[in-house]
Amino acid sequence: MGPVQIKQLLQSAEIGQPVEIKAWVRTKRESKNAIFIALNDGSTIHNIQAVAEPGQFSDSIIRLITTGSCLKVTGILVESLGSGQSVEVKIQEIHIYGTADPEQYPLQPKKHSLEFLREIAHLRPRTNTFSAILRIRHALAFAVHKYYNDNGFFYLHTPIITASDAEGAGEMFRVTSLDMENPPRDESGQIDYKEDFFGRETNLTVSGQLEGELGALALSKIYTFGPTFRAENSNTTRHLAEFWMIEPEMAFFELEDNMNLAEDFVKYVIRYALEHCADDLDFLEKRQADEEKSKPQNDRSMPLSEKLRFVVDNPFERLTYTEAIDILVRSKPHKEKKFQYHVEWGVDLQSEHERYLVEKHFKKPVILTNYPRAIKSFYMKLDEDGKTVRAMDVLFPGIGEIIGGSQREDNYDKLLERVHEIGIEPENLWWYLETRKFGTAPHSGFGLGFERLVQFVTGMGNIRDVIPFPRYPKSAEF
Amino acid sequence: MGPVQIKQLLQSAEIGQPVEIKAWVRTKRESKNAIFIALNDGSTIHNIQAVAEPGQFSDSIIRLITTGSCLKVTGILVESLGSGQSVEVKIQEIHIYGTADPEQYPLQPKKHSLEFLREIAHLRPRTNTFSAILRIRHALAFAVHKYYNDNGFFYLHTPIITASDAEGAGEMFRVTSLDMENPPRDESGQIDYKEDFFGRETNLTVSGQLEGELGALALSKIYTFGPTFRAENSNTTRHLAEFWMIEPEMAFFELEDNMNLAEDFVKYVIRYALEHCADDLDFLEKRQADEEKSKPQNDRSMPLSEKLRFVVDNPFERLTYTEAIDILVRSKPHKEKKFQYHVEWGVDLQSEHERYLVEKHFKKPVILTNYPRAIKSFYMKLDEDGKTVRAMDVLFPGIGEIIGGSQREDNYDKLLERVHEIGIEPENLWWYLETRKFGTAPHSGFGLGFERLVQFVTGMGNIRDVIPFPRYPKSAEF
Repeated sequence: MGPVQIKQLLQSAEIGQPVEIKAWVRTKRESKNAIFIALNDGSTIHNIQAVAEPGQFSDSIIRLITTGSCLKVTGILVESLGSGQSVEVKIQEIHIYGTADPEQYPLQPKKHSLEFLREIAHLRPRTNTFSAILRIRHALAFAVHKYYNDNGFFYLHTPIITASDAEGAGEMFRVTSLDMENPPRDESGQIDYKEDFFGRETNLTVSGQLEGELGALALSKIYTFGPTFRAENSNTTRHLAEFWMIEPEMAFFELEDNMNLAEDFVKYVIRYALEHCADDLDFLEKRQADEEKSKPQNDRSMPLSEKLRFVVDNPFERLTYTEAIDILVRSKPHKEKKFQYHVEWGVDLQSEHERYLVEKHFKKPVILTNYPRAIKSFYMKLDEDGKTVRAMDVLFPGIGEIIGGSQREDNYDKLLERVHEIGIEPENLWWYLETRKFGTAPHSGFGLGFERLVQFVTGMGNIRDVIPFPRYPKSAEF
Repeated sequence: MGPVQIKQLLQSAEIGQPVEIKAWVRTKRESKNAIFIALNDGSTIHNIQAVAEPGQFSDSIIRLITTGSCLKVTGILVESLGSGQSVEVKIQEIHIYGTADPEQYPLQPKKHSLEFLREIAHLRPRTNTFSAILRIRHALAFAVHKYYNDNGFFYLHTPIITASDAEGAGEMFRVTSLDMENPPRDESGQIDYKEDFFGRETNLTVSGQLEGELGALALSKIYTFGPTFRAENSNTTRHLAEFWMIEPEMAFFELEDNMNLAEDFVKYVIRYALEHCADDLDFLEKRQADEEKSKPQNDRSMPLSEKLRFVVDNPFERLTYTEAIDILVRSKPHKEKKFQYHVEWGVDLQSEHERYLVEKHFKKPVILTNYPRAIKSFYMKLDEDGKTVRAMDVLFPGIGEIIGGSQREDNYDKLLERVHEIGIEPENLWWYLETRKFGTAPHSGFGLGFERLVQFVTGMGNIRDVIPFPRYPKSAEF
């Protein structure tokens, strides 16, 4: 259905075969002997070159063929004499679907800054960089579904609008259908949320985990893959207000099984990208090298393919938080006061510490476990010492934490105590607590921020460039 | 990783092999010669039977093994002498993970109403009906991704929080991080949304289509699969406030290609369910037959498998809206005034009309095309007669419309005219309009409400029963 994709044409076409291509013009080049039109339909990073003879078409036609215009080209596939491509199209007919006035069209063939491209997010998928990112994003998403499906997990759609706060912390977006200028009020003059659509206060989910646990305690192995939201006013290269999370949750998995799954899973999806997106990764690796040419050798990132192989080829080093603190406290950067943040038992590790462990100390991805209870969430299972919880964070080069998870507290009394401790009303989580009353089971899970993964795999520095239409403070365009 | 699934055990286990099962008790039955425990881990509709000898375990243990409790059972796989299963487990050891006090646990082994189960949505995935539905839901979701991946489409995550209204109509949920009790106000006393998180008014998306088109006009073929929202206060069995939509969008597809894709796609996913969920579909078919025993023969639905085969095995009948009106006006129910809603050229068809065409007249699924422009959305391509648009609706037995789509208006001037006509500010859609200015192309797409599809495939009457945690007026529990 639909036209043949340029990707397929370049892979499997036979010389001499008639072709019809529908695509956008990337560049046009006129020489004495020929007119060369580079066409791209988004199916691949590579263009196909279409060639016309001078005079074959009227000037009024040729003039309309500019960067960004959309064409149907009919012709014959011939061997290419130019370098860089094996086949090209000898044009017989051209139909122009849509022009792109060079005076107005912002994507002229020159280098554009990522900042500028963010302002034209409706057009940036037409660039090499963003089409490569979006194809890799697709491949990673498909790999996620394939991995879990092949391993007996069920995809669970957890709710987006919720009345609960899974983390007991996050700043949340309110969802309402009340007239904000004139909301209904109760006798005490407060806004009467009983009149709101859901008859109560509601917000956008910060995590599907709690509902995911409900699924796992019935179907054994589930995963979520959906949007989550944070109303944090942070303008960084690592945060979005709207992002996609993958959260598997498994009954009968203890911390060890959870680590095994996380390692196997993340290696699988990265390997999938390496196998299915070689051309796009090549392009982005070169792009990154270009970007970093001006940087001193020491500040440059690992080449993209090397970084991905680093994850795929190494067994992840596993150690406890306590052991990691030991290593950090005895490390050179600590002694020489090179770390920006202080490190001692009890503190939350910063990206610089995580990266030191991965990049300098172990030289492989790391899984840290058994963090102090005080710095982790209420639902994590308490260790026997009462001081730590069965948490695990997976640490990657370049970015630090990429996966956070834990074995969940499955003991009703202990969980209730923790709920009280952090000040959640137990009545708001009655359904969550009940699963520990009725057929409770050891269970575990973790969360992977999908955009962090795409950032890691594409090597893009700003998270706003790995999602089609980023949402961040003061920005909800498109 | 994790315990062996009961589904696998029942399929491929060898007699005499030692097994360890982790699962929940569905029922326990004690006879003079044995204690039978039916165990289920959610991987399949079928339980595995575990058998202990009387006296093998103390009464205090056996007493705790009740419906809903969670066990680890170690034993040997033996041939089953009972009917209904080929293998069972001769128990050697039992470990109880979690009990389920029969006085408190609401899911005792008896028939529960769907209404009651909706109130305990945190536990209903532990029932046969809901675990079957969730497994089928998973299989359908995976089939969607697999179909589009295999056919060269890219999965595009369109934004959930938007500042635009794709339909120019829908009632939308507002998203805000303002203090509603005390919102900032501008000089005129109006709420100052410049102070809101995104610096403007934002809401939850009603469709990813417009952004999907941006993707298609760069990558050629994309699809979305994400949550969408309607703040309509409708308490029906067909509406949810939060539901998942699949929206493919394809450059270079005209209406005919769009129809071909819709038919091929929906047949593929239903065939996938037939092939991968036979046991669950069997169960639901019997359930439906039971439910309908009390109904007169005429009011009963088609048996589930017959209804699915009806879709998979028949070529869809294609005709224009105008031709359909002709048929309806000349039909017996129209002449005998049996239709509840009046039918004549220009009206929007009701479910009763759609079902008449599918079930009585053609006896196959139907695709209607070229609807009057006045009853369709602004973005649909105008036909040459100026009266109709290149819309298409796919109609199914039992439910009527399941897919709605169209070729999109690709002419800038015509689209702008339509935008003005329905009263949208063109500045709010500048990015959408620009795609018709820069390299416009013929393109098409459609939307499939995922819950409608799950309803169709599972035969469930109420849409609230085919999503794990339904959202509807006055209900956002869990």
